[in-house]
Amino acid sequence: MSGLAKLGHVAFETPDLEESLWFFRDIMGLKVVEREDDTAYLCGLRDYEHHTMSLTEGNEGGVDHIAFRATDPESVETYASRMDELGLDVERVDAGTEAGVGESIRFETPVGYPLEIYYDVEKPKPSEGKRSKIRTRRYSPEYANRVYPQRIDHAHVQGPKATETADFFQDEFDFGLNEVYRSADGTDWGLWLAVTALPHDIAVHRLEEDVREFHHISYHLDHLQDLWDAADILSENGVEIDAGPGKHAITNANYLYVKDPASDVRIELFAGPGYLNFEPDWETVVWQDEIGSESDHQWFGEQYDEDGVPFV
Amino acid sequence: MSGLAKLGHVAFETPDLEESLWFFRDIMGLKVVEREDDTAYLCGLRDYEHHTMSLTEGNEGGVDHIAFRATDPESVETYASRMDELGLDVERVDAGTEAGVGESIRFETPVGYPLEIYYDVEKPKPSEGKRSKIRTRRYSPEYANRVYPQRIDHAHVQGPKATETADFFQDEFDFGLNEVYRSADGTDWGLWLAVTALPHDIAVHRLEEDVREFHHISYHLDHLQDLWDAADILSENGVEIDAGPGKHAITNANYLYVKDPASDVRIELFAGPGYLNFEPDWETVVWQDEIGSESDHQWFGEQYDEDGVPFV
Amino acid sequence: MSGLAKLGHVAFETPDLEESLWFFRDIMGLKVVEREDDTAYLCGLRDYEHHTMSLTEGNEGGVDHIAFRATDPESVETYASRMDELGLDVERVDAGTEAGVGESIRFETPVGYPLEIYYDVEKPKPSEGKRSKIRTRRYSPEYANRVYPQRIDHAHVQGPKATETADFFQDEFDFGLNEVYRSADGTDWGLWLAVTALPHDIAVHRLEEDVREFHHISYHLDHLQDLWDAADILSENGVEIDAGPGKHAITNANYLYVKDPASDVRIELFAGPGYLNFEPDWETVVWQDEIGSESDHQWFGEQYDEDGVPFV
Amino acid sequence: MSGLAKLGHVAFETPDLEESLWFFRDIMGLKVVEREDDTAYLCGLRDYEHHTMSLTEGNEGGVDHIAFRATDPESVETYASRMDELGLDVERVDAGTEAGVGESIRFETPVGYPLEIYYDVEKPKPSEGKRSKIRTRRYSPEYANRVYPQRIDHAHVQGPKATETADFFQDEFDFGLNEVYRSADGTDWGLWLAVTALPHDIAVHRLEEDVREFHHISYHLDHLQDLWDAADILSENGVEIDAGPGKHAITNANYLYVKDPASDVRIELFAGPGYLNFEPDWETVVWQDEIGSESDHQWFGEQYDEDGVPFV
Repeated sequence: MSGLAKLGHVAFETPDLEESLWFFRDIMGLKVVEREDDTAYLCGLRDYEHHTMSLTEGNEGGVDHIAFRATDPESVETYASRMDELGLDVERVDAGTEAGVGESIRFETPVGYPLEIYYDVEKPKPSEGKRSKIRTRRYSPEYANRVYPQRIDHAHVQGPKATETADFFQDEFDFGLNEVYRSADGTDWGLWLAVTALPHDIAVHRLEEDVREFHHISYHLDHLQDLWDAADILSENGVEIDAGPGKHAITNANYLYVKDPASDVRIELFAGPGYLNFEPDWETVVWQDEIGSESDHQWFGEQYDEDGVPFV
Repeated sequence: MSGLAKLGHVAFETPDLEESLWFFRDIMGLKVVEREDDTAYLCGLRDYEHHTMSLTEGNEGGVDHIAFRATDPESVETYASRMDELGLDVERVDAGTEAGVGESIRFETPVGYPLEIYYDVEKPKPSEGKRSKIRTRRYSPEYANRVYPQRIDHAHVQGPKATETADFFQDEFDFGLNEVYRSADGTDWGLWLAVTALPHDIAVHRLEEDVREFHHISYHLDHLQDLWDAADILSENGVEIDAGPGKHAITNANYLYVKDPASDVRIELFAGPGYLNFEPDWETVVWQDEIGSESDHQWFGEQYDEDGVPFV
Repeated sequence: MSGLAKLGHVAFETPDLEESLWFFRDIMGLKVVEREDDTAYLCGLRDYEHHTMSLTEGNEGGVDHIAFRATDPESVETYASRMDELGLDVERVDAGTEAGVGESIRFETPVGYPLEIYYDVEKPKPSEGKRSKIRTRRYSPEYANRVYPQRIDHAHVQGPKATETADFFQDEFDFGLNEVYRSADGTDWGLWLAVTALPHDIAVHRLEEDVREFHHISYHLDHLQDLWDAADILSENGVEIDAGPGKHAITNANYLYVKDPASDVRIELFAGPGYLNFEPDWETVVWQDEIGSESDHQWFGEQYDEDGVPFV
Repeated sequence: MSGLAKLGHVAFETPDLEESLWFFRDIMGLKVVEREDDTAYLCGLRDYEHHTMSLTEGNEGGVDHIAFRATDPESVETYASRMDELGLDVERVDAGTEAGVGESIRFETPVGYPLEIYYDVEKPKPSEGKRSKIRTRRYSPEYANRVYPQRIDHAHVQGPKATETADFFQDEFDFGLNEVYRSADGTDWGLWLAVTALPHDIAVHRLEEDVREFHHISYHLDHLQDLWDAADILSENGVEIDAGPGKHAITNANYLYVKDPASDVRIELFAGPGYLNFEPDWETVVWQDEIGSESDHQWFGEQYDEDGVPFV
């Protein structure tokens, strides 16, 4: 059993915090839980933790770290020792360095982004009047913007060491490998991994060049209609849609991709039930035989970005 | 007031009736109301008339005629006289020539397809067990296929005489011109016309070349989810989607285009509420100023056919 | 052909305008177009006319008048003469008496509420930023509250003279009688009438006692999910739902009923496609034979108000 | 960590197998995976295991057993020993006794139904043509009936020993207690427990009398519209709906209850996202303070069965 419970949050930098807040808060509808100095902490309507995304004003933009929550405090220490054994440089981060998050550890992973592991986290309640009367909901839907991401879903990273990254998550953290896109020569170009029942908590995609790229963070919407309304709102606000709406065969997602104009962070809105994997004996689904190109795992809808690169 | 009540049906030819029935009946889910010799008559689940589409096996495929229903029997005669006055050759068609349809007249229109006008039409009820207990519904939804067009919506034709065709419908039949796409030089490239409260019953699109083209027949689905499920079913059945799912700004339609592989007849699945025009003083909505190309009237979603031609 | 085009608006009184605005504006999401003295004028997101509901602070609450729009200015005069011939007292109302509405006439109808007929009406555009870029939409959906009625649908009145009222609308204004609920003894208890393609613009229900009652005004929502979200928002806000969500067999409506706590005005949220009647030869659908009680025209969902009276 | 992975299936008896199949197969749309002698094995469209419900023709009807799947074969043995230690009578069931299921153990639980634990299970694929091209889906949606349950969701049992049953699942199988309904005197009347990320895999409800009652088995539908269509189909087929459509506050479910007329087995159709619980530190949500009666955990919609008993 894994000592990790779930994807916790992704910490981003942006060259212009106010413009990024226009996008993520005003258009996307994420809730700002806390604001300190040059950092804003945000969450979806039904996220239970303090935040699932942070935005810090910085020169360049980019990803500061990707954080997973441990199943218990001991697992944080167990993983600290293990990463040390593996010769990885483990940084200790004090409680409160990130608002709402307790002590954590950070270290580099093969894909090139620092991974954070923490257990202690605040679960602040919205003030009276914003809190739902349904006690398993965080915010009252009355106060939702029209695009209303409900919860963080997954992160997607790219780089030359896709297989190594996937192995690392499987070997060290007991993730399951749910789906793989494999080319005819046996190379794995996309790998979808999960520690929860979701189709994936993290996906890694192989790039030919020796660059790493954070492809997107994904939030889940309840309904297809929400995805459609999101496209409508983006169009009314003059924000260009990267790709979609459409449906992937892999992960079974109804999707739409759009970028924060300020930070260039891409967000995937992911709607619909996808699938839930409660199977203890799940066999990795390999997409290979009958498909000739990676884009064939697409099911329908617009499929390419402005450079003709298929979305995943 | 117009003497025409609504778009009635479109009569198509197909080189392979069985293959067209596979598409329109088995995949699209239209109901076959009657079958005679080499012709099949089909309707949507909630169409009230005998049929709204016919398919006749013939060498080439194509459109035989587009039929509008008159508001009363006298209007058929009034229009017969008027078309005669205009120097048009008016053909009398006997009752029963088309199954379920009474006496009608046919004549050529500027756009190049014969127009039929009729009043008398049968409204057969489905047999017991297929009929809905809700008396304003024709078929029980229990018997619906998964793609279930509810009713005919509109026809869309193209040719060099778009403006003349639109004038003809306005002058002779009192259609309203709801929306227009106009290029910077003042040329109208697309015109959406209605005699009912729908966004359009017929649209005409200007082509540069001296060819006419029947662009599509459109059926209405109740819900966005139906449109999405249609795309899913088409993908499962290996039928390539022409364009969509997406949303037009003009007509406010959620759309998907797909062609019958046998006859090459294109069908637009049109979902969602669009708008209803009950205004006696509707001012034609002109799409011109801020848009540079015809495709800009697109709102979101895939927008081009395989030749890079924007869909309308 | 009728000289009336559509249901225009209903003018209500309320003992507490602010509390009614809390309900109709803040919870229901109708837009306040104009506010003058003790009257507020409201509309749905896609209503094209100045307003479709007005609320005036007054002692008692109740209905001031029900207004239909004429197809042209001449029809207002034609009806004024005709009502005069019928011995009805025709009141002339100056332009601007109601904000946005031109000269109109008012007179009593059998059911007991003053009917207003007008043609001239303003169609103000929302200010830049609130206006949709889709030119056939009035407001940008971005600015919609979570319950977002799109357009006025119908009014429903009750009284002892139901049949007389229905006859009046048919004889004087050429409404069609789309559906009827008839008891075994041949008495018509509910009659659904339309001058547009909607299932009804006005319904009249027979009461045994010699009282009149305005049962409800109805606004249309685009989707079933909107109806469901409306119920969710009402529950979060502690507003008790009168009945529903459910589905009527008659009119094929997905419905929910709720009352403004201040004025006791009941609003029916009506979602989904219902049916559109473009048939020139529609035969009145009579619900009689196999049903034993009026509530049987219900299809599913909660059906009774707090007094055990079935909703219609 | 629990050695149980998920709710596997519920085995029912019915006095009339053919009539039960009319209901569960023809109306409800469950797929019949295998049929042997007097037993039919059924599953939802996206259930991954051989079956999630079985129906055996028998005199009385009722529940034969409720089965959970273990996370691994060893856990079956561990639990066998543990139940033996607890003095429970552990029955060994040979592989194949139930079609598709390997060796299992069965024993009585406080609530009064035999519990089965197994690990080995077949995962047969539908024949070519019925299988989805999306490899994480079992059946092609093309072949779905209009009510199409996607996967088993939970079971709900009632009896006098509700608390003892909930303790048993927590103590022996490490289930989490997600939500509780507690009356003012501190008695727990409803307890919702999960071993997966679902709001509950099993719920137990306290009855005053010394009877046990299997309240319902629940299947999950993807969308609210599916729930609505289910109600429509049931109404067209003359099957009376027990309660709903409506929404629970507890579990956040959109629900509808209906009984198989032959076996009296109640099925809850459960639609929408509910919530997913990936939190390692979930605190049981207690519904007590502000609610005066059990029915208050209802959110909206019809809430009572024919005896005035609130649904849960």
